[in-house]
Amino acid sequence: MLKVGIIGVGTVGTSVAEILRDNADVISARAGVDIVVKSGVVKNLSKERGLDIIITDNVDDVLEDGEIDIVVELMGGVDEPFEVVKRALNAGKAVVTANKALLAYHRYELQEIAQNIAFEYEASVAGGIPIINALRDGLSANHIESIMGIMNGTCNYMMTEMTNNGVSYDAILKEAQELGYAEADPTFDVGGFDAAHKLLILASIAYGIDAKPEDILIEGIDNVRSEDIAFAKEFGYAIKLLGIAKKDGDEVELRVHACLIKQEEMIAKIDGVMNAISVVGDKVGETLYYGAGAGGDATASAVVANIIDIARSGKSTPMLGFNRPMEGSQLRLKQSANIVSKYYLRVNVSDKAGVLAKLTKIYETHNISIETMLQRPAENESANLLISTHEAKESDIQAMINELEALDFVNARPVMIRIV
Amino acid sequence: MLKVGIIGVGTVGTSVAEILRDNADVISARAGVDIVVKSGVVKNLSKERGLDIIITDNVDDVLEDGEIDIVVELMGGVDEPFEVVKRALNAGKAVVTANKALLAYHRYELQEIAQNIAFEYEASVAGGIPIINALRDGLSANHIESIMGIMNGTCNYMMTEMTNNGVSYDAILKEAQELGYAEADPTFDVGGFDAAHKLLILASIAYGIDAKPEDILIEGIDNVRSEDIAFAKEFGYAIKLLGIAKKDGDEVELRVHACLIKQEEMIAKIDGVMNAISVVGDKVGETLYYGAGAGGDATASAVVANIIDIARSGKSTPMLGFNRPMEGSQLRLKQSANIVSKYYLRVNVSDKAGVLAKLTKIYETHNISIETMLQRPAENESANLLISTHEAKESDIQAMINELEALDFVNARPVMIRIV
Repeated sequence: MLKVGIIGVGTVGTSVAEILRDNADVISARAGVDIVVKSGVVKNLSKERGLDIIITDNVDDVLEDGEIDIVVELMGGVDEPFEVVKRALNAGKAVVTANKALLAYHRYELQEIAQNIAFEYEASVAGGIPIINALRDGLSANHIESIMGIMNGTCNYMMTEMTNNGVSYDAILKEAQELGYAEADPTFDVGGFDAAHKLLILASIAYGIDAKPEDILIEGIDNVRSEDIAFAKEFGYAIKLLGIAKKDGDEVELRVHACLIKQEEMIAKIDGVMNAISVVGDKVGETLYYGAGAGGDATASAVVANIIDIARSGKSTPMLGFNRPMEGSQLRLKQSANIVSKYYLRVNVSDKAGVLAKLTKIYETHNISIETMLQRPAENESANLLISTHEAKESDIQAMINELEALDFVNARPVMIRIV
Repeated sequence: MLKVGIIGVGTVGTSVAEILRDNADVISARAGVDIVVKSGVVKNLSKERGLDIIITDNVDDVLEDGEIDIVVELMGGVDEPFEVVKRALNAGKAVVTANKALLAYHRYELQEIAQNIAFEYEASVAGGIPIINALRDGLSANHIESIMGIMNGTCNYMMTEMTNNGVSYDAILKEAQELGYAEADPTFDVGGFDAAHKLLILASIAYGIDAKPEDILIEGIDNVRSEDIAFAKEFGYAIKLLGIAKKDGDEVELRVHACLIKQEEMIAKIDGVMNAISVVGDKVGETLYYGAGAGGDATASAVVANIIDIARSGKSTPMLGFNRPMEGSQLRLKQSANIVSKYYLRVNVSDKAGVLAKLTKIYETHNISIETMLQRPAENESANLLISTHEAKESDIQAMINELEALDFVNARPVMIRIV
């Protein structure tokens, strides 16, 4: 029999305990042993959880319990769980976590500590979708060319509603908050940070590349408005918040931002709160993984799968997929300024003569070549110029946006969305 | 260093050797050891393969070579590979196969023999998509409620072309043959047998259920005609060949047949030669896996992933996912006659008065309740009655079809397609 201690018995922790109890028949048959939750650590002892386990508010009761084989870390945060997880590993306990922030910052230190003991984290990316499993084991024969993922269900829900039902950004954000999809302070989701944490984890498995959130381009959907959605629809695009990892020679691009993406692409067809991750390997081509990216049971499904793996085989695969560094040249993170993309711009201008000619000249000086342009009337005798460009360099676009913003007939900082 | 012997160096076998050579940098880093192909067994020694390996036409050169750690079986067929694989396992060599027919018939015997040695088969289902991995490891915490898969790219290509481009069945079959998607005798694909082999493998992992192709309902797309496609489009359906496994109490339905499926479903959006498998777990909800189901490199990607797994951890997971049988009641295969479904029927009738009244009476006597009916003119003064039913029992539908076929004003055996 394997005994589990859960540190953090909130929604996911409760689901983990419930699944191990309710699905014990199939889990013990697959694992080859019985798996039971012995104890759980909570902050608030007085809350009733309906679980037949020892409840404590002291992590030592789990970490120093010699009977506990596997520690499930579901505390949230970075520093405190890092200390807790290190203590567990050093005490010889296998660890399973769903904590993407912990991994976004400390995954390589944890890999070092967990060389001879299992440390698993399937639930940290895309909830119930076994994407770690797929990328680390299923696609291991491939050089990974790219990863493009809808890794934040809140943003995808909002973009879907704006697209299909014509809801405004502000209205759909409010609705998402009421539904519990978005927090009171929605920055972590709509600002792209949640997706960035997940992207960094996948990038380590795909490329062996160490980067922290501060190192990469992270933008959100907070600039996307109904005009942009309308433009996208007119030209056959969907707008999605994507986490993107892309190999280009010896460099890897890592970026999170809203994207215009052709409606025919599989990833563009993913609607609502669902997650999906498209991975292109040099041999397998495109594969895509779809499912619930959040929710107690879906996330707990991945946590319990890791527990079963550990029961079956202990430490099997290296934590981040590499048993040793690749020989030859190492991949490096590409500077964001060097990213090449097509761009969509929304420029709000005063509706005066000569404006277009002046803008056209500015595009030219920044090496920006225009593919399509639409002019749409906007409020207060202004107009929105909706522009898509041919491929351009990120630094050129940024410089141009800065120059445009300073012009007297440009009424606000132009909004830019990258086109995939 | 691990040494591999490939038995059957055709398209996939050549790709396996090429991937192990071309992607050696990333493969050895992930595996932690170098992996090389030592030798390959072929039927025709004179053909040039451009590989720097020993080529032989004698399987003993691989099976009796003490240096070879892993045997890759890519011979095709059932009886001969079964003997070869048994010899390899008994000689203590790990085995990787892409042979779905072998597994459709002998997977439980092989599991018995391979209790202490790795036997892997990711490539046997849906080519490059790591669906075995996902189902066996990633979703192991779940009772699997259903599996619905597009497991045959040829059929999906044909259905997609008929739907999107209005091509006739005969024309698209000819084109698929010219493109190399379908064999000269297309029965194995269009008759549903290829998909059935794959479904049986997945059903063992999901349910621990042992069944052979002869035990389950297998139909193909060979009855689907443009009228059916038109009906489907009009009522918001796509037509797909699906492999379906569904748990219903203590019974499991296993069936392969053409289906009408609502266009909003993810699986209905999969076009062309691609494969996709939707799995519903009781905790995770729906997850879906998409990618190339065939082709040398995609299939070899899965074979090599298995080789890397074996290099990393030897024997880790039980072959069919269960370390021991589930306690309590075992799941049984549901009799096909007891399957309950909605149905679509195309009945070609002579266009005479009184026909509808007579048919209506026959529906009633068989407990078949009609949901929609369209009448469309057909050749030779006949009409096609296109009918969808409410839920009915398979045995009732079959009995009704038999009665309809015998009527003098019914010109051919009615065509039936199940509605998911």
